[in-house]
Amino acid sequence: MPKKIRLGILGGSGDSLIGVLHRVAAQINDNYELVAAVFTSKYEKNIAFAKALNMPLGRIYRDFESFVEAEGKLPESERIQVCAVLTPNFLHYPMALKLLENGFHVICEKPMTTTLAQAKTLQRANKKAGSVFALTHTYTGYPMVRQMREMIKGGVLGKIHRIDAVYYQGWVNTIVHDQKKRETVWRLDPEKAGISSCMGDIGVHAFNLLEYTTGLKVRSVLSDFNYLYKDNPMDVDGTVLLRMGDHVKGVIRASQIATGEENGLAISIYGEKAAFRWEQENPNFLYLKSDTQPTRIFKPGHAYNSPLSLDGTKLPPGHPEGIFDAMANIYKGVARAIRGKEYNDGEFPAIMDGVRGMNFIEATVASHKGGNIWVALEP
Amino acid sequence: MPKKIRLGILGGSGDSLIGVLHRVAAQINDNYELVAAVFTSKYEKNIAFAKALNMPLGRIYRDFESFVEAEGKLPESERIQVCAVLTPNFLHYPMALKLLENGFHVICEKPMTTTLAQAKTLQRANKKAGSVFALTHTYTGYPMVRQMREMIKGGVLGKIHRIDAVYYQGWVNTIVHDQKKRETVWRLDPEKAGISSCMGDIGVHAFNLLEYTTGLKVRSVLSDFNYLYKDNPMDVDGTVLLRMGDHVKGVIRASQIATGEENGLAISIYGEKAAFRWEQENPNFLYLKSDTQPTRIFKPGHAYNSPLSLDGTKLPPGHPEGIFDAMANIYKGVARAIRGKEYNDGEFPAIMDGVRGMNFIEATVASHKGGNIWVALEP
Amino acid sequence: MPKKIRLGILGGSGDSLIGVLHRVAAQINDNYELVAAVFTSKYEKNIAFAKALNMPLGRIYRDFESFVEAEGKLPESERIQVCAVLTPNFLHYPMALKLLENGFHVICEKPMTTTLAQAKTLQRANKKAGSVFALTHTYTGYPMVRQMREMIKGGVLGKIHRIDAVYYQGWVNTIVHDQKKRETVWRLDPEKAGISSCMGDIGVHAFNLLEYTTGLKVRSVLSDFNYLYKDNPMDVDGTVLLRMGDHVKGVIRASQIATGEENGLAISIYGEKAAFRWEQENPNFLYLKSDTQPTRIFKPGHAYNSPLSLDGTKLPPGHPEGIFDAMANIYKGVARAIRGKEYNDGEFPAIMDGVRGMNFIEATVASHKGGNIWVALEP
Amino acid sequence: MPKKIRLGILGGSGDSLIGVLHRVAAQINDNYELVAAVFTSKYEKNIAFAKALNMPLGRIYRDFESFVEAEGKLPESERIQVCAVLTPNFLHYPMALKLLENGFHVICEKPMTTTLAQAKTLQRANKKAGSVFALTHTYTGYPMVRQMREMIKGGVLGKIHRIDAVYYQGWVNTIVHDQKKRETVWRLDPEKAGISSCMGDIGVHAFNLLEYTTGLKVRSVLSDFNYLYKDNPMDVDGTVLLRMGDHVKGVIRASQIATGEENGLAISIYGEKAAFRWEQENPNFLYLKSDTQPTRIFKPGHAYNSPLSLDGTKLPPGHPEGIFDAMANIYKGVARAIRGKEYNDGEFPAIMDGVRGMNFIEATVASHKGGNIWVALEP
Repeated sequence: MPKKIRLGILGGSGDSLIGVLHRVAAQINDNYELVAAVFTSKYEKNIAFAKALNMPLGRIYRDFESFVEAEGKLPESERIQVCAVLTPNFLHYPMALKLLENGFHVICEKPMTTTLAQAKTLQRANKKAGSVFALTHTYTGYPMVRQMREMIKGGVLGKIHRIDAVYYQGWVNTIVHDQKKRETVWRLDPEKAGISSCMGDIGVHAFNLLEYTTGLKVRSVLSDFNYLYKDNPMDVDGTVLLRMGDHVKGVIRASQIATGEENGLAISIYGEKAAFRWEQENPNFLYLKSDTQPTRIFKPGHAYNSPLSLDGTKLPPGHPEGIFDAMANIYKGVARAIRGKEYNDGEFPAIMDGVRGMNFIEATVASHKGGNIWVALEP
Repeated sequence: MPKKIRLGILGGSGDSLIGVLHRVAAQINDNYELVAAVFTSKYEKNIAFAKALNMPLGRIYRDFESFVEAEGKLPESERIQVCAVLTPNFLHYPMALKLLENGFHVICEKPMTTTLAQAKTLQRANKKAGSVFALTHTYTGYPMVRQMREMIKGGVLGKIHRIDAVYYQGWVNTIVHDQKKRETVWRLDPEKAGISSCMGDIGVHAFNLLEYTTGLKVRSVLSDFNYLYKDNPMDVDGTVLLRMGDHVKGVIRASQIATGEENGLAISIYGEKAAFRWEQENPNFLYLKSDTQPTRIFKPGHAYNSPLSLDGTKLPPGHPEGIFDAMANIYKGVARAIRGKEYNDGEFPAIMDGVRGMNFIEATVASHKGGNIWVALEP
Repeated sequence: MPKKIRLGILGGSGDSLIGVLHRVAAQINDNYELVAAVFTSKYEKNIAFAKALNMPLGRIYRDFESFVEAEGKLPESERIQVCAVLTPNFLHYPMALKLLENGFHVICEKPMTTTLAQAKTLQRANKKAGSVFALTHTYTGYPMVRQMREMIKGGVLGKIHRIDAVYYQGWVNTIVHDQKKRETVWRLDPEKAGISSCMGDIGVHAFNLLEYTTGLKVRSVLSDFNYLYKDNPMDVDGTVLLRMGDHVKGVIRASQIATGEENGLAISIYGEKAAFRWEQENPNFLYLKSDTQPTRIFKPGHAYNSPLSLDGTKLPPGHPEGIFDAMANIYKGVARAIRGKEYNDGEFPAIMDGVRGMNFIEATVASHKGGNIWVALEP
Repeated sequence: MPKKIRLGILGGSGDSLIGVLHRVAAQINDNYELVAAVFTSKYEKNIAFAKALNMPLGRIYRDFESFVEAEGKLPESERIQVCAVLTPNFLHYPMALKLLENGFHVICEKPMTTTLAQAKTLQRANKKAGSVFALTHTYTGYPMVRQMREMIKGGVLGKIHRIDAVYYQGWVNTIVHDQKKRETVWRLDPEKAGISSCMGDIGVHAFNLLEYTTGLKVRSVLSDFNYLYKDNPMDVDGTVLLRMGDHVKGVIRASQIATGEENGLAISIYGEKAAFRWEQENPNFLYLKSDTQPTRIFKPGHAYNSPLSLDGTKLPPGHPEGIFDAMANIYKGVARAIRGKEYNDGEFPAIMDGVRGMNFIEATVASHKGGNIWVALEP
């Protein structure tokens, strides 16, 4: 194993879900060393947090600009190789762009940008830089999601006819019904979160999972959103009709007011020969259904799984790995890419997934605002 | 208990799912005596089937016309009181109409008719006759569906915001992909089945379940259907966006090509305070979810259930009752109504459910054919 | 189909779980006609109950003796052919014996008798009479239990090594902790229920299910019971170690104080090649496990099931049949036997199952009282 | 946060499940720095493995003796503070003993030793040293196991009457049925693994979980083991009857030949008022059952959980954490103890758990070999 990859982090201080998730994931497979960061724009908190992590403070920077400048001046063997961007949505674009322009690899949280135009600019920058760009659609890192992808590629479903994805959460209930809260939380502020809350934050995960597992592209969408209060411009719930090819139709359901749902991402894909069902909250069970044979339950770590799936499992069957491990698998694939090794294109979502995602978000908003009309995605 | 109610049956010979279901359901609570029938229009099979059931042959009729005529001539104390209509869809209307006009109570399979206009005519006839008319949306007979209805009525969910129903089956796969078969089966023939296969046969169940449990009315629909082959005019899959009030949105997903699904009817209803989840294939488990409290699993037969639910349970908790028992509960309610006793309007679906159902089917077809536009249902 | 079989019933009046279960089960497949009964020894209640069932009162008898005498005097073409014995345990033996001696077929509730000696006497009487004797271990009537039996017979598990059955209920909690109640309920009175409550009422079901599905015989048992209160002599909980052959070991766990459990009968059978898992509260799911292949879920009504299993399913897959249908399958098998047709010996439990069951009950009690020693069952 | 704790590791090289589990767990909460190790007694592999982990090689030692000696000579601020012992069972005792005697804290895999006598010696050494000793019964680190413990302590179950734990795996099938393999694998060699395979490796986990969650002590055991082949002296399957107090009875079932089971540890605890059910393969679901109320499903990360449970959850509800996170929670508790902070005694299993475990293992073997007799555990 070569030396550890030097990692920088932007954002994710304190109890931030995303911060914990990335830091743990980066450590799990012994590939990364966290060497530089701006965890938050509040400098004192930034330093305090770095101390809490037992990091040397020399490379804890005051802001993003000094981060890029100072790292760039370090010898190549010391400066960060890759940087994780975990800031609020509107900062993804300027940060990722500058990182790419300065020769760094990038691991970026989703949604990649706040507009499709930005996403395309980033795509060009990425192409020009020739660097590794990963978009952390975490759920694609689960071994059974990878198994589904590989088996579909192998033809086990036959021609696909119906697709059904859902992402239901209930946590926005506690915010959206409280006028004060809904006015102040950044996720319900389009300036910071982008033009969509529900589709932008979670619907896009379902969209990505569909394209990731089926290998098909969404051609057009027709959406209907639910905006609960006139004083808030952000969707908190929506349904999106999909067309993904001749006689390939489907639906994405997403909601942040699905009371009592925690992180209810699930997907069903129905082909002419068989169907798959997977649920994020029980991620180690993958169901293969047939009209004529008993349903089969695939689980991680068995010899019957594909290499891509097995690469994402560390323990024998029955030892539940979870979401940290899914994210760790993405980091593992990124490490392989950074080191210039061959990797399967299913190992981590990349710049194109971000472009597609932004296209999806804008198209669903346009569809809803246009009166629930069909809006085509770019091919 | 008064004397048994004299029951006639039209249709449902041989291995017909529906025939078995109604006959067993009618027997379960000791309320009915099957005394007259036309099981099939093929006379010899009709007689043979009656013999197989150990029925006296005197009131096994050659056809519907002679059935109505002969029964009408019998003394009131002998003639049938109620008739179950289990024939292919296009016969429901003329048979039910004539039965009503001749003073009989009617238990009718769904869809009630093949057009909304017929449904309204039937509604007028029913009103004029003053008789009992039940539409066998079987699933409303499950104790936990009833429990859901009563608890929603009691306000446990608070204001409802999102509704999600699904009815997935895979059985049409084996027919629709075979050109010969798809040309000959009556369910894919609009002359016999009505204008829709998937919405008409199963989507309408999901629709009915939504209105039954929530007490809300669907105001408008926008649907997208999947027609697999150009030589067949019937939808085998579709998604329907729903609007059920201010900020009450939802979706019905229905498919007959959802490979590997058996009889996958399920419903989730999300309110401001809590949410319900129920699945037909595990009918004795009702989940009540909350953002802040542990999910609770309600089961039949417990003292905590409502009277309407408990009325539909015969055995102590843990002794699984199934779909025969659900249908038997509908028959039990009908018996109570025929005997002139008070009954809860949740005991059986009635003529209005049939009118609503036909309105739904026609509206979804109109929406799809109109280019996925919103179509209002009648208030 | 020949004429309906004339059925008599002893016991099961009012809301008796067992009464409802048998009456409904007898009706479901159109094989039986209930013509005579003593539902309860209290004559007025007996008559009232018969009226409630809309039965003619001419053959509602005052007591068992007059029942047997009067029926015996009827012409052969009118008298009952088979009688269901649903009375409290201690009455099973005298009633079944006399019925057999008078030429009637018998359907008897379990436990068959209150002693092994009685069971053997009954066995001799049954042999002498040459009649049909069925013991209603209801759970053997479930299609997936039958499927398990047939697949094990076919060798799918290979050599069996471990067996694990459980029957947990919690209902006795509400009785046993209340001194008044535990002194009065017949199930906790050894005079009426026999020498064991928990093993006699439910443990014996688990035992029967083990022998039914595996085809193996329990050779010896070692048990440990839990008697909660000194003033009550009946076990309400116990664990039984089993030896069923060379290196075939296992356990039966039974409890009536397993708080919150409803009717928790389940079984796991581990062979060298594969294993089965089945649970009564989700009876339509049968799990086949392997060390190297995905777990498979078998469900009723599919072409992949055995004839014995399919014979017990009336509806297409996904239409849940329940415990009434399981019991109805036993009645169906009994009807076939009474009519002298060939039947699979898995269609209903018979006299030998009763002898084995009583042997099991007495052996477990002897083991516990002997200081948790091994007690052999008769071969 | 103070500086990272300096950790040494003995054993766990290569793909060793246990090695991966401990290394990842140690990293997850940013508390430990791995600074010294003997991963394997084969020196070249040892060095190669350290390189693969990107560790400096200066403190990768040739053997345990040089490890202890060299670390002891380092300045206190550099030498390891705690050492994880992951070697085969028979090495736990001598290594842990010497580590304690040399002033190091110890994190030891289970079973703690190979005899009860050794365990007691270790206990005395631990007391004398006054150091932190943790035994990695990983499963006690799951948030819902902790929640169960705290709620039982709070009285939610009332008096406990029945206890049922199971630990079923199937992996030994592939070894034990192959004569060559069963002669060579260390786990089936009593010299290396101790006197029991099934009870020593997994039964003891179930035992520990019972005592951990209930707060009760097992008083005596009666066991029956299954030894499949005469040429191998190790149990691969067994059942243990338990007595845990007046009218508190129960059972531990353990098997390594439970075909198709992966890591099937589960526990049910029945009290007079309510009952708990938890399963390791779905670790984020904890069921609370009652005779009169709906079953409730507790999940991690909710405000309704106890502080001990919440301390073990890093992400919001619905983001599945798994077994690495459970072990990480144990490491977190150990870190708190090493740093001299107050900690809840449920945060990690300690020396007494190891003494109890060895007592359990020896008692179950003695019971089986003594002819399935009751054997008391020390109070």
